[in-house]
Amino acid sequence: ACAAGPLRRSQPPAVPAEVVSRPWGVRPRGRRGLHGSSSSPQEVVLTSERYGVERLPFSRVSDGDVAFFERMMPGRVVTNPEELKPFNVDWLKSVRGCSKLMLKPQTTAEVSQVLRYCYERNLAVNPQGGNTGLVGGSVPVFDEIILSTVLMNRIISFDKVSGILVCQAGCVLEKLNEYLEEQAFVMPLDLGAKGTCHIGGNVATNAGGLRLLRYGSLRGTVLGLEVVLADGSTLDCLASLRKDNTGYDLKQLFIGSEGTLGVITAVSILCPQKPTAVNLAFLGCQSFAKVLETFTTCRIMLGEILSAYEFMDEKCMELVKRHLKLSSPVTDSPFYVLIETSGSNSTHDEEKLSNFLEQAMTSGLVTDGTVATDDKKIKTLWGLRERITEALAHDGYVYKYDISLPVEKLYDLVTDMRARLGRSAKNVVGYGHLGDGNLHLNITAESYSHSLLDAIEPFVYEWSARYNGSISAEHGLGFKKKQFIQYSKPNEAILLMKRFKAMLDPKGILNPYKMLP
Amino acid sequence: ACAAGPLRRSQPPAVPAEVVSRPWGVRPRGRRGLHGSSSSPQEVVLTSERYGVERLPFSRVSDGDVAFFERMMPGRVVTNPEELKPFNVDWLKSVRGCSKLMLKPQTTAEVSQVLRYCYERNLAVNPQGGNTGLVGGSVPVFDEIILSTVLMNRIISFDKVSGILVCQAGCVLEKLNEYLEEQAFVMPLDLGAKGTCHIGGNVATNAGGLRLLRYGSLRGTVLGLEVVLADGSTLDCLASLRKDNTGYDLKQLFIGSEGTLGVITAVSILCPQKPTAVNLAFLGCQSFAKVLETFTTCRIMLGEILSAYEFMDEKCMELVKRHLKLSSPVTDSPFYVLIETSGSNSTHDEEKLSNFLEQAMTSGLVTDGTVATDDKKIKTLWGLRERITEALAHDGYVYKYDISLPVEKLYDLVTDMRARLGRSAKNVVGYGHLGDGNLHLNITAESYSHSLLDAIEPFVYEWSARYNGSISAEHGLGFKKKQFIQYSKPNEAILLMKRFKAMLDPKGILNPYKMLP
Repeated sequence: ACAAGPLRRSQPPAVPAEVVSRPWGVRPRGRRGLHGSSSSPQEVVLTSERYGVERLPFSRVSDGDVAFFERMMPGRVVTNPEELKPFNVDWLKSVRGCSKLMLKPQTTAEVSQVLRYCYERNLAVNPQGGNTGLVGGSVPVFDEIILSTVLMNRIISFDKVSGILVCQAGCVLEKLNEYLEEQAFVMPLDLGAKGTCHIGGNVATNAGGLRLLRYGSLRGTVLGLEVVLADGSTLDCLASLRKDNTGYDLKQLFIGSEGTLGVITAVSILCPQKPTAVNLAFLGCQSFAKVLETFTTCRIMLGEILSAYEFMDEKCMELVKRHLKLSSPVTDSPFYVLIETSGSNSTHDEEKLSNFLEQAMTSGLVTDGTVATDDKKIKTLWGLRERITEALAHDGYVYKYDISLPVEKLYDLVTDMRARLGRSAKNVVGYGHLGDGNLHLNITAESYSHSLLDAIEPFVYEWSARYNGSISAEHGLGFKKKQFIQYSKPNEAILLMKRFKAMLDPKGILNPYKMLP
Repeated sequence: ACAAGPLRRSQPPAVPAEVVSRPWGVRPRGRRGLHGSSSSPQEVVLTSERYGVERLPFSRVSDGDVAFFERMMPGRVVTNPEELKPFNVDWLKSVRGCSKLMLKPQTTAEVSQVLRYCYERNLAVNPQGGNTGLVGGSVPVFDEIILSTVLMNRIISFDKVSGILVCQAGCVLEKLNEYLEEQAFVMPLDLGAKGTCHIGGNVATNAGGLRLLRYGSLRGTVLGLEVVLADGSTLDCLASLRKDNTGYDLKQLFIGSEGTLGVITAVSILCPQKPTAVNLAFLGCQSFAKVLETFTTCRIMLGEILSAYEFMDEKCMELVKRHLKLSSPVTDSPFYVLIETSGSNSTHDEEKLSNFLEQAMTSGLVTDGTVATDDKKIKTLWGLRERITEALAHDGYVYKYDISLPVEKLYDLVTDMRARLGRSAKNVVGYGHLGDGNLHLNITAESYSHSLLDAIEPFVYEWSARYNGSISAEHGLGFKKKQFIQYSKPNEAILLMKRFKAMLDPKGILNPYKMLP
């Protein structure tokens, strides 16, 4: 399908995109990226072929278009197929587009000019941040123009009294956090891909992550957004106020809209103070029931200092050890939990934590464990949890599910799936943000297969719907989950979403083939 | 204007609405209501007259309409003018409509039937909760049908593991909190009108209140909504999951939409655990600069247990003493602050608090103060702050402003306004949620006057806009502030809001004359 629309240049590119072999990971990719699998992107089957998608009747990028963009932002227009390659493939190497053009605007005005032009010309656009998404939402499906926020990485302001940060959408999450830490603040979100992901992408996908339990979702912490709409008009809702009840809260519609309603160009976000005392406990539990009971107990005993409650099963630990050569100080347990406390008084916090641990050990909730208070050991222990995604990527093709469920039912889905798939899957693992009722169910196999996919889906969605779960807790729908939205949303809601999309992007040029069925 | 459209009944009402004299406060009104001023509602000038509003060409309620509703919900249709009176006047007695019909549905299906009928008949509807709003949003402007949630007060479910409460929209906030406290949880919001306000109204106005500093805004804590749209269709977004990224977050549009986009019929909300240790400090400061410095200090020293930081000026204290006969244990200070801590360990919390107080006293930030740890004294001290609104209502006609500003500028507006108005105002007072950058500026006078209003507005809005503030932090726009939205929102945003309104309520029957200019 992509071959039908090659970029009409006066000279053909020196090496056709399909032939170039180039190792993955040309960009600095932070934690998630650095340890990505080493297979090369052209091995990934084109999305249009694997999924049999029909290209919508958008215009195709012409030489005239490229010339226009070159005049607008000289040196920031990428047409070299080799250079484009990693931006056409997702981090999981599960979907691949064939965009022939990437633009790197530096300012909101440039994004506005680009979209105004594309809207008039009926050119489809794929907004892209750090390209760390897990549902195929961040890469083109066909030849959409990639609009990258990579050069929009300026911090606009930070107010130390209110803790409000205003920055461009392309700022890397980890860089923002480092900047804030120097001023005794932190970002209200944290996730494995922090070294690569852009704050604009985080907001566009309503990223959850590791600190949600403590600081809440982006719907509460994002105070303002600047967004460029499909027709190029700019919507300035970049307020930096904790409270503002003047009219409908338009910015909310763009949080979690996965680039389908507008391109986020700047973000205003409320940042908490950096906790002066952080402790981490890594514990082994003999059953999932004990994982749950440990959660209830620590929520009461740690109260306001509890900042994360993560769990992983022994299969996760096996993969992290095998593929990443990480070693764990706690072993031989079917389940592991990671409990983080963050507070303002280390003596108080350590006392709370040790009271809790004593209670957990004496009552048999926990059979083994270790506690870390120094930064280095804390980072090492977090690594065991944060790098599971990476270890899975090394294990083969990964079928990824990100489910919200009532916590009591959370692990039953993993057990049921394991029984259902038997030996047709390589590994079936479960981990995630237990404190938020969020399970990451992952299934690995040597390679992608339709029949395995059919064994998993729609079973996994039906299972989740039966317990009023969500088929996407934090990853979004992107390309890969959009057909399953009806398992979590009623028809009237989906129809209304389509009306919003039609109103804000009547030509449908923004991130087409994504999010809505 | 209202007289032009009397309800065409076969018999005229026994006593015309304009003649009946009846004391205010017939309904149980909780804290805010119980102590309301004693003047009677018919003294309030009709909104249409005071503000010179033109009635829009909606149909007028006919006998046939009343008969239809009587069949649908027998005994829950109010047409008695005397009974209707308090529902036509706002709590501040600043605006008055002349609705001739109030409906009290019990179920979502009934709300749906009502709206379907009204939509077809082109009848305007004023959704009403506890009628405690402060911007004239909760009462009719003309003869809109009052759709009251008063009988929709059923708790649907509460899950003790997740802390998620699902309930009908008409549940009274204080009742919900009492219900939760029995199970060791609390509502994530608290406000002076808690004894009367409905959770549906809280959500529709995106209420802020006293706990926002700790638990964040309703945009983060509301997890799901059920809404009936203008045409009577029901939108079920009543998920009770902490995380759900499946499609656009439609419910957000209804949070803070003040009943203009749909009628909220049920709410799913995340409730925090009830803190086992609560302390309150009521302190006197010699200057606003010291109020600010005290805030910065306590934010660091109290950290995660800080749950409220409120301030009030000496004028507020004077009015509370004069009109409500309350006495304060702390006196002779130009400013007072109220600091609340909530935590899980009373020993730790008291230690943190006493460390902070020692620091505040020795460094001269605070000159006098008292601390409360028992429930009764805590309630008494909170009363000094919570009942300011009430004391103001006793002082005369109140011009109310609810402004977000950078905290450093917060009190300058009060000082400037006091200087500007001189003796033409009775009192100019400032208090509010300092921790959220939210000032309540109130001006009292013997009675309403156009000239005093002209001296205040648009000065107060221009002043706020100059410092990038919001002209409504938490009260909303309602009827009284809607013309000033442009001081806080750019034109493109206002146009987009109008497009949303036109899409969801094409006939404009929901809470007309409100929110949008």
